[in-house]
Amino acid sequence: MNYIKLPSDLLPMSLESTKKLQRLPLEGVMVLEFCQYLSGPSAGLRLADLGARVIKIENPGKGDLCRILPIKNQWIEESSLLFHTINRNKESYTANLKSATELADIKKLIKKADVMMHNFRPGVMEKLGLDYGSVSAVNPGLVFAEISGYGAEGPWARKPGQDLLLQAMSGLMYASGNQLDGPMPFGLAIGDMLCGAQAVQGILAALVHRKRTGKGSKISLSLLESLLDMQFEVLTTYFASGKRPLRSAVNGAHALLGAPYGIYCTKDSHLAIAMIPILSLREALGCAGLDPYDQSMVFSHRDEIKQVLADFLKTETTSYWLEKLRKSGLWAMDVKDWKRLKESDGYRHAALEQSLKLTNGQSIKTNRCPIRIDGKVLFSEKPAPGLGEHTALIKEEFK
Amino acid sequence: MNYIKLPSDLLPMSLESTKKLQRLPLEGVMVLEFCQYLSGPSAGLRLADLGARVIKIENPGKGDLCRILPIKNQWIEESSLLFHTINRNKESYTANLKSATELADIKKLIKKADVMMHNFRPGVMEKLGLDYGSVSAVNPGLVFAEISGYGAEGPWARKPGQDLLLQAMSGLMYASGNQLDGPMPFGLAIGDMLCGAQAVQGILAALVHRKRTGKGSKISLSLLESLLDMQFEVLTTYFASGKRPLRSAVNGAHALLGAPYGIYCTKDSHLAIAMIPILSLREALGCAGLDPYDQSMVFSHRDEIKQVLADFLKTETTSYWLEKLRKSGLWAMDVKDWKRLKESDGYRHAALEQSLKLTNGQSIKTNRCPIRIDGKVLFSEKPAPGLGEHTALIKEEFK
Repeated sequence: MNYIKLPSDLLPMSLESTKKLQRLPLEGVMVLEFCQYLSGPSAGLRLADLGARVIKIENPGKGDLCRILPIKNQWIEESSLLFHTINRNKESYTANLKSATELADIKKLIKKADVMMHNFRPGVMEKLGLDYGSVSAVNPGLVFAEISGYGAEGPWARKPGQDLLLQAMSGLMYASGNQLDGPMPFGLAIGDMLCGAQAVQGILAALVHRKRTGKGSKISLSLLESLLDMQFEVLTTYFASGKRPLRSAVNGAHALLGAPYGIYCTKDSHLAIAMIPILSLREALGCAGLDPYDQSMVFSHRDEIKQVLADFLKTETTSYWLEKLRKSGLWAMDVKDWKRLKESDGYRHAALEQSLKLTNGQSIKTNRCPIRIDGKVLFSEKPAPGLGEHTALIKEEFK
Repeated sequence: MNYIKLPSDLLPMSLESTKKLQRLPLEGVMVLEFCQYLSGPSAGLRLADLGARVIKIENPGKGDLCRILPIKNQWIEESSLLFHTINRNKESYTANLKSATELADIKKLIKKADVMMHNFRPGVMEKLGLDYGSVSAVNPGLVFAEISGYGAEGPWARKPGQDLLLQAMSGLMYASGNQLDGPMPFGLAIGDMLCGAQAVQGILAALVHRKRTGKGSKISLSLLESLLDMQFEVLTTYFASGKRPLRSAVNGAHALLGAPYGIYCTKDSHLAIAMIPILSLREALGCAGLDPYDQSMVFSHRDEIKQVLADFLKTETTSYWLEKLRKSGLWAMDVKDWKRLKESDGYRHAALEQSLKLTNGQSIKTNRCPIRIDGKVLFSEKPAPGLGEHTALIKEEFK
């Protein structure tokens, strides 16, 4: 069951307010998730954490292929750790979608569902008779969401919708790193995650629409469109100027922003410097090397200015510079890795971690939903389901 | 006005279906956006594109400070190009929130609004008397969304909520690049964008909740929580193993994935290779150097295997390798920059671009909303508003 629990270091609540909070915003919403890997399941997870009942429809053989996808060879209960983190708080129902009997059972679920989502390649759901046209005939109020790599049609529709490949062909790899670097991938599956987030937006907007009109809709997203949307700043600038934004030669951090924006080496570690006017920076740091430059030159002399700063900041420690910058109210920050982050007070206060109790008694720690409601964080202890764990119960419920 | 228009290369529609499509899902929803820069305004933009009426409440002096934020020194009508792209499809209402009379006018808007959002630093709205407690007394059904850097309280609450600084302190800079690189920023304002996307999720879930219960809610997000959520894979793995995931020494692309995952130099350009079993890769490429390795070694010998491949792939062109890999159905892709992307058929088919007509007759090209509804893309020609452009009209409407 979903519930909201306060971390022990936050304010205590009266029993009455606890009761009120147990009503999550998507309570009563039933979602059928015909999804695998990351993009679709990450959307299902968010809907679940916001209170929806999410039922994964899986193949009786292997199920969601993410169950067998290794990340850093971490396995829990014979499933990939990634599967556990992205499918917590869901139920699992197995069905052979090629069997007419089992498909008929699935249609009973579809009739009762509010949302149905899939991230199969274009054409798969049509072959199964589970495309939007067929299922909306069974349930006209259904919100149907589909995620593909490149859209349902067009010259790229048959290509594999995999995050790294989409990053490669969407231009994104020329956003990070330095000018003379090769293409630089972003080290997380950002296309999958952003597309999943936007699928949730489309689904919830369609639910708002249905409340008003009684009608369902089909919501379509692709990793390509999501990755292009994410690059709206560089693309719009490219459209306007006709010139491709060039990454900085020195300490590249954002191809559209002038000096000093970037990460700098210091005597002992690293320092992040955001948009700071050149004169203020010169004053705060006492960096005479900046004397030839003023604010009108932060784009035209970006790399030159950054090189002066890079050489200068190496001479003292991060905390030395931070103190000078913060005294002047300027925007700078030390750089943390995961270990230093986890050890920090601010991290502990964010109450990000939650434990899931697995059916075998083991527990794993993972992130919670980043959205707070009425000031409270959302936790759910419900672990990822075993393959088909809820099939019998759900069949009984919807027979 | 919002509307859905088909790009000319897609199927024509009957007049009837056009009419039906003009009803966007969030039609009738009124949003007051007390936001600046990127995170909040990007959430407002999505709500607008989905059909909401979004009114920016701006300071009569400079307005949203994004108006004067230079990106690559691109200015349109004296406002930053970034401002135009992220604030299209909105209205602007100026008010001095410190004046009692003007605040009383704002309260009239709040009384009629469905959603109110802000991304001021913690404490600012409280001082103005526009915190959730005060405005929900005026309008109990209001959905109130707040975006901060680090949450409303805690040891980091007063820190500046700027994207690069948040990237620096959230661990994210150890996700991209190679093991011996320093911290590597992601070259786009990903914290702002993801947090804005999650704000939309929270707001829409709260609207669904309000339809059922009649009650509003407060939705809170922070860049920190969004950036941690984005790192759920690395964090959960770190929690489980106690070991910090290390970036690859060679062609780093995802710290949790084994060989060959990465971007490789070829004789003429670059090649992206996703998860491909070592034996299949050896067969398809004819790479004898891979003979000593099997699938059980892709994590333990990740960097060694990748180095063998890196040396081997340099000897031929990208298209040569792509043909071999694709013939075997393996996941690989060439790497495109924005120019090559824009020139490609698949990009044209995605119909991503739209033109905005500015009030001075100029037009600018930018991205459209990535979500398709009932198979159709969503366009809106409505440009970003001039500062206070709609104040008088809105005052008249809500007097």
